[in-house]
Amino acid sequence: MKKGTFNAITDIEGVAVGHVTLDGPLDGEDYRCTGVTAILPHAGNLFKEKVPAASFVLNGFGKTAGLIQVEELGVLESPVMLTNTFSVGAVLEGTLRHMLSENPEIGDSSSSLNVVVGECNDSFLNSMRRMEVRPEHAEQAIRSATGGEFAQGATGAGKGMICYGAKGGIGSSSRTAEHAGRRFTVGTLVLTNFGRGNECRFPGWVAPEEPAPETPVAGSDPSASDRDEKRPDGSVIIVVATDAPLDSRQLGRLAKRASIGLGRTGTHIHNGSGDIIIAFSTGYTVPHGGDDPLIVRETFKDDHPLMNDLFQAAIESTEEAILQSLLHAEDTRGRKGRSVKKADFETDPLG
Amino acid sequence: MKKGTFNAITDIEGVAVGHVTLDGPLDGEDYRCTGVTAILPHAGNLFKEKVPAASFVLNGFGKTAGLIQVEELGVLESPVMLTNTFSVGAVLEGTLRHMLSENPEIGDSSSSLNVVVGECNDSFLNSMRRMEVRPEHAEQAIRSATGGEFAQGATGAGKGMICYGAKGGIGSSSRTAEHAGRRFTVGTLVLTNFGRGNECRFPGWVAPEEPAPETPVAGSDPSASDRDEKRPDGSVIIVVATDAPLDSRQLGRLAKRASIGLGRTGTHIHNGSGDIIIAFSTGYTVPHGGDDPLIVRETFKDDHPLMNDLFQAAIESTEEAILQSLLHAEDTRGRKGRSVKKADFETDPLG
Amino acid sequence: MKKGTFNAITDIEGVAVGHVTLDGPLDGEDYRCTGVTAILPHAGNLFKEKVPAASFVLNGFGKTAGLIQVEELGVLESPVMLTNTFSVGAVLEGTLRHMLSENPEIGDSSSSLNVVVGECNDSFLNSMRRMEVRPEHAEQAIRSATGGEFAQGATGAGKGMICYGAKGGIGSSSRTAEHAGRRFTVGTLVLTNFGRGNECRFPGWVAPEEPAPETPVAGSDPSASDRDEKRPDGSVIIVVATDAPLDSRQLGRLAKRASIGLGRTGTHIHNGSGDIIIAFSTGYTVPHGGDDPLIVRETFKDDHPLMNDLFQAAIESTEEAILQSLLHAEDTRGRKGRSVKKADFETDPLG
Amino acid sequence: MKKGTFNAITDIEGVAVGHVTLDGPLDGEDYRCTGVTAILPHAGNLFKEKVPAASFVLNGFGKTAGLIQVEELGVLESPVMLTNTFSVGAVLEGTLRHMLSENPEIGDSSSSLNVVVGECNDSFLNSMRRMEVRPEHAEQAIRSATGGEFAQGATGAGKGMICYGAKGGIGSSSRTAEHAGRRFTVGTLVLTNFGRGNECRFPGWVAPEEPAPETPVAGSDPSASDRDEKRPDGSVIIVVATDAPLDSRQLGRLAKRASIGLGRTGTHIHNGSGDIIIAFSTGYTVPHGGDDPLIVRETFKDDHPLMNDLFQAAIESTEEAILQSLLHAEDTRGRKGRSVKKADFETDPLG
Repeated sequence: MKKGTFNAITDIEGVAVGHVTLDGPLDGEDYRCTGVTAILPHAGNLFKEKVPAASFVLNGFGKTAGLIQVEELGVLESPVMLTNTFSVGAVLEGTLRHMLSENPEIGDSSSSLNVVVGECNDSFLNSMRRMEVRPEHAEQAIRSATGGEFAQGATGAGKGMICYGAKGGIGSSSRTAEHAGRRFTVGTLVLTNFGRGNECRFPGWVAPEEPAPETPVAGSDPSASDRDEKRPDGSVIIVVATDAPLDSRQLGRLAKRASIGLGRTGTHIHNGSGDIIIAFSTGYTVPHGGDDPLIVRETFKDDHPLMNDLFQAAIESTEEAILQSLLHAEDTRGRKGRSVKKADFETDPLG
Repeated sequence: MKKGTFNAITDIEGVAVGHVTLDGPLDGEDYRCTGVTAILPHAGNLFKEKVPAASFVLNGFGKTAGLIQVEELGVLESPVMLTNTFSVGAVLEGTLRHMLSENPEIGDSSSSLNVVVGECNDSFLNSMRRMEVRPEHAEQAIRSATGGEFAQGATGAGKGMICYGAKGGIGSSSRTAEHAGRRFTVGTLVLTNFGRGNECRFPGWVAPEEPAPETPVAGSDPSASDRDEKRPDGSVIIVVATDAPLDSRQLGRLAKRASIGLGRTGTHIHNGSGDIIIAFSTGYTVPHGGDDPLIVRETFKDDHPLMNDLFQAAIESTEEAILQSLLHAEDTRGRKGRSVKKADFETDPLG
Repeated sequence: MKKGTFNAITDIEGVAVGHVTLDGPLDGEDYRCTGVTAILPHAGNLFKEKVPAASFVLNGFGKTAGLIQVEELGVLESPVMLTNTFSVGAVLEGTLRHMLSENPEIGDSSSSLNVVVGECNDSFLNSMRRMEVRPEHAEQAIRSATGGEFAQGATGAGKGMICYGAKGGIGSSSRTAEHAGRRFTVGTLVLTNFGRGNECRFPGWVAPEEPAPETPVAGSDPSASDRDEKRPDGSVIIVVATDAPLDSRQLGRLAKRASIGLGRTGTHIHNGSGDIIIAFSTGYTVPHGGDDPLIVRETFKDDHPLMNDLFQAAIESTEEAILQSLLHAEDTRGRKGRSVKKADFETDPLG
Repeated sequence: MKKGTFNAITDIEGVAVGHVTLDGPLDGEDYRCTGVTAILPHAGNLFKEKVPAASFVLNGFGKTAGLIQVEELGVLESPVMLTNTFSVGAVLEGTLRHMLSENPEIGDSSSSLNVVVGECNDSFLNSMRRMEVRPEHAEQAIRSATGGEFAQGATGAGKGMICYGAKGGIGSSSRTAEHAGRRFTVGTLVLTNFGRGNECRFPGWVAPEEPAPETPVAGSDPSASDRDEKRPDGSVIIVVATDAPLDSRQLGRLAKRASIGLGRTGTHIHNGSGDIIIAFSTGYTVPHGGDDPLIVRETFKDDHPLMNDLFQAAIESTEEAILQSLLHAEDTRGRKGRSVKKADFETDPLG
């Protein structure tokens, strides 16, 4: 399938991405190696013009906030925020502050606001217990978001992440499908922090010397292993966007296909990995409130062949976005003098 | 069915409840009328000895955090925290801080921690946009938790809540079932913030003069109504505990029955009401880690007649806990000079 | 809320209901006391013009067929069929035969067809092991379906059913909501076969002498009780229809509210009761196939006050449909010389 | 990972597989090219000794019966039956007859029975509209089931199936994991009927000349294409068995991993493909009824490293079972003079 202009989630018109990266030593052996990434479905007021959305939880060992309301109402009314596991609270609060400043009626005369925050555990490199990400970092990431090209790899929420034992982080890719002169795009952004080095299936992959074992192998005593050098189980957050006017049920179907793209890269979807997919469409918006109970809009037919093309696009763009997170990353140092190396390939995995 | 000693969730041995209440004027017309409530499944280390748990989302217009992992792994590893909608982030962070201080390995060499926070919108009385609840209030609520009798009504997270147009808040009740000399108890704690005055079905109920309309009735223009005097849609969080050794699938079944108890009180389960049930068992615990893949324990049979008794207990204790939240509440003042009155009954609704 | 013209599911324009009732002695003590009921969403070709649909499983001790595809695609493409537990296969085959005769391409050049069949266990009165319902009875029920008034009570699939220890069966009711000159209706049809006599909460209810205990009470030995006189656990199938143009997600929300209407009648939602709700809309149809991926249609806003009215209508029409199943039923005899009596009320339960 | 003795689902002790194959011309161009496959979790009475079970619906364009109760109660109480789409009713009835003959109390004094039937659409080769599979074929498949080696490929329910444009059908494989002297096995059986020839990712795969296009590609008019030569969308049923004592929640997790194994073979999980996974454990049984509400048994820890091994085993055995279905199949003729060829590989895909 063809890629979009930027081969990124920003090929969906209106979608913008912003990062705040925290990097540098703290006292002792502690180190800030973390950040926040914001994905904005459109440049307008997301509370007043919500976008259809859905999620799929492939493995729910995760602390993502906000999905209950997404599932019930089928819409997203905030940016999708990514950060480390212990900063979900701070990012939730910061994102809320941003949305409240835009909308004085929320929490006063109007109802409330649902914020979506995804997370992965970057505690091998980052002193996550220090909770260095504060609410203002979330606000800053949102304000800095732009369309077009954006930084990938060890940046934003991806700063401290590890994928298949190599340096992971933020990656993105896109695919397009055409029919009768009308073109739809599927774009994916991933935060990769999962997998063991020997599982990876990308062509040319060189299994890295693991920075530390993730889940111990059966037969070893996990409580007896060297605690300081054990790597926590990883996770991955996958954000899929499309300009096809899919509703929440259909976006849930798209999200499931993204999980297939993840599986193709080699992971066994470990017990301790929070593997969560969030999908949204910019193909139409759902206004907040209003006097008319009915809205006329385009809806998409499940049984049209284009649906299968969108499914394929979700699989392929997820698979490549994960690869891009590896290709864009760089050797990264963190707490306790640890470092994680960029992935090595014998041959060009995109070739 | 018989009630337990305290007619409360604390009839489940080991369960403790703590509140922090914030009450008093801020600058201008703003007012703090809110708080935090903590429910601890047992007095030990919840991360090291998790309890089986599940949830049921009757209506997902809600921002409850932590349920994804509860559903995947079937366990709870933190207290269940309740607060106002805009304080989920702060309470999440405070609860995490408490758990980290107890467990130095979390986020260092061990994996992570899942915190469960439920919420309702108290913005009619409370200046919710001010986010007055801070992380330390969550820590304080946890530390203050005790078994036995505890404060109900307009206290803790219930301070600013409104139920059926009257003062709502925290309520609790319990029921017991016996078989062959063994007794099991189901205890429920609710945070009530839902319903219109004319929906309530409790015997003797006197529909209150509504403090302000909740969802406008169809035919009126919601955007044209007086914004200052519109009451946001309400919600309810229901926490069901039992000492019967149910697993997560079975606790999910119990949670569904609690929703029937809610429905019996009269609400139509409004679109904008986050009606969420969380159930846990103290009948066994699940240790974190360990070298043996297998644990021998008692399991409960779904087709034993006692299961139906537990279902009935969940329905009845939910229905009464909602009533108790009204009976324990008192006239409460809040922001903009507003106040909400205690419910009025023509006859004793328990009689 | 106001009722529709017929106070029945047929107040939704186009909806038709048909019954086939099997009644009479077989050899020995066996007796046919069963049947089939068909609910047609519209009079056209349901495969070519599907209707949006969803389901909610309150308690999944049930053998309803066809819901997996309804949940995935959000549409219904066959009548909703009701029968006894052991006749799901025969009714599935008969309904399929009916649809195949209308559509020569299904299973030849086109894909396949999803048939929805709900069931309850009528084996106290009916010799269910004899599987007397055959495929042609399903075809006959479909062909006999009509709009307007239709038989309720101990008829069709309801012939052998027992509700709260009295004679149950088919019941129906409807409610309407208006906004800005446009009227929407919610109509419900139930097949009632659940509950113990002492649970029922209808006003004026006289608890019947139970024909036989349903689930034994805890403390008795179920294996030691008189097997011949034990009544199997019951179930209820609730079919909710509306002409409001709701999509499948929204119909799922409506289905959940119907479960609240069920709960209000008094049942504890027993372990062995298959309590399943199927909801569909006639507000628009989804054509099979076609070259255009997009369809323009009216969609309904979740946050419009009319949504709450539809929720209330689903609750109230379900509650009354259950009552109507009791009021329309009559004393009924079945196998082994057994009989079940019509419900008795001290006062008019509708008064 | 190591394979079991038979590299099949029958490596799980007690599991047996039986087939009935219908093959041969009918009148005109019609042809019977179909069958039934039965998978028995153990040789005892499945109603009296149920096994824990769960399912995962990757894509619900399918008519599988019985999963609602499996999800609610977490057990399987019948064989898992496989057949063509239009024979679900007949196989449901036949399986029920078999179980009733073993258990005279079901449907008399005891409750009822839940039968699980999975299906794929074999209508390219088989005259599916003729419904040639009858209830007695299901009974016969059950009675003929044996452990150890069994027929794979174009046999039983697999007789008329098409996978990646080549001849598909029944395939099986297994993997083992060891810990502290205790060995657990995961075995998978698939019924393959999905995918386009150009999607397949097996090493050495030679894309076949498609017998007919499956879903048309976007841009073509599906209604205008040659109806007689269009192949219906495919499906796949995956049955995963293990002797590890997993409960239903954990088996659901295993089922999700099987979907990853499916995705690795190349399919885009088409809109019209019913991709459904059913998992069960023989690690313990759940007795029907009994006076004691509690049973003591071994339970499995989610966070033990062996769980990840079981996940890997589910992925790998699914991937290979699909391959085995191709390797065992043979050129097969069907209705309208059509035939489908065995898959061709340039190199040994297992090498």
